[in-house]
Amino acid sequence: MNIWHYVAVADLISILNASFGFISVLMVTGGYLILASDFMLLAVIFDSLDGWVARRTEEVDVTSFGKNMDSLSDVISFSVAPGLLLYSACSSFSVPNINILVALLIVICGILRLSRFNVLADSTDVPSEDKFVGLPIPITALILGSFYLSGMFRMDLALIIMALVAVLMISTVDYPKYKGVKLMIGGGVLIIATCLPQYILSSIAYLPAKLLFIFTTIYVLIMPLMEFYGKLHKSGPNVR
Amino acid sequence: MNIWHYVAVADLISILNASFGFISVLMVTGGYLILASDFMLLAVIFDSLDGWVARRTEEVDVTSFGKNMDSLSDVISFSVAPGLLLYSACSSFSVPNINILVALLIVICGILRLSRFNVLADSTDVPSEDKFVGLPIPITALILGSFYLSGMFRMDLALIIMALVAVLMISTVDYPKYKGVKLMIGGGVLIIATCLPQYILSSIAYLPAKLLFIFTTIYVLIMPLMEFYGKLHKSGPNVR
Repeated sequence: MNIWHYVAVADLISILNASFGFISVLMVTGGYLILASDFMLLAVIFDSLDGWVARRTEEVDVTSFGKNMDSLSDVISFSVAPGLLLYSACSSFSVPNINILVALLIVICGILRLSRFNVLADSTDVPSEDKFVGLPIPITALILGSFYLSGMFRMDLALIIMALVAVLMISTVDYPKYKGVKLMIGGGVLIIATCLPQYILSSIAYLPAKLLFIFTTIYVLIMPLMEFYGKLHKSGPNVR
Repeated sequence: MNIWHYVAVADLISILNASFGFISVLMVTGGYLILASDFMLLAVIFDSLDGWVARRTEEVDVTSFGKNMDSLSDVISFSVAPGLLLYSACSSFSVPNINILVALLIVICGILRLSRFNVLADSTDVPSEDKFVGLPIPITALILGSFYLSGMFRMDLALIIMALVAVLMISTVDYPKYKGVKLMIGGGVLIIATCLPQYILSSIAYLPAKLLFIFTTIYVLIMPLMEFYGKLHKSGPNVR
């Protein structure tokens, strides 16, 4: 029952994920929204790293301790942190309290999304290995963090995008799952570049953030648009 | 796979728990620490209510969706919210950054505690029904919220108490589990009274908060002290 009996290497990376998410929350509270975006984006790297390490070390998560650590870290980094950042970044929006409502929506849809994910992972009729049911939760951090750092942040657009992201998380829209190491490294480099430019690379500042924002937006939109197109034409491959 | 297929009445109360926890976080960010304490304490009521409703409605949580919703809400209300409140309430403490470290400790020990709880709840060698392994997590909100509202809040004491609470959460010390309806109602009334006095009952202001703080402190300390006493006398009933 000693707690360290359960803790695997991957769980230490989950702890880093949660810590970066919580430091992002501290940064918002201190008014450092750029740093908050950076920490939230770096948490995404640790989140994809812990799954990768778990597969590499072949530690079998018999007790589901690792799965619990993973989702409890995710709710901090990808629900509370982006919700609070959105609330704070949109605090001067013309319609009062809309920022509170959308922030709450992100938190509530986040815990619903994580709970369903864990149930589906346990069930025997698991959806195929290469897809997610509903938009995966780290997208909240990727899209909001990159948008905030892109130099083209707008409160109205941010609120609309994040409300849409929250609803797509609890939808039944299928999203492709990419596990390749090359993509993970490429994504990691792009995230780190997004966190750097405003301090170091002033000549190409905002470019990595803009790229990251555009890639993420395409990922968010393409599947629902394909389903919609499929439904319009009745015989499309994505009709349910 | 539609998410509403899984959601039971108890889960709606978990959502209220998470929402109050998140509003507590928003209040800290706005600098309203008294309101933040109130919302955090009220989240404790919803947390005990969701377990009670789940037992009364006899909804069987076959898929563990409810258990996931419960712990994901708890991490917001009883790890992130108290961690952030402590950080903010102790921001002018003489030793710099100690507030960040203790806040991080609460978050990390919180996710470890919740993960172990879920593993033990699943396992066949469940500890007896009437005890918890390690200090239960809502104590973080009860002790910090009541201390902050008691009129005798001190930064140094708060940091020491919360570091101790964090470590006791991941310890193997057994804590008694009280499920009685009368105790739940009594506790709920005391929590509500704690949240009211500073605005309404100025004559007895701080009294409910002081009572709640003292009861919680006794609960936190009595079990480790008994174990320590038992170990000293080698034949004590709590020796392992």
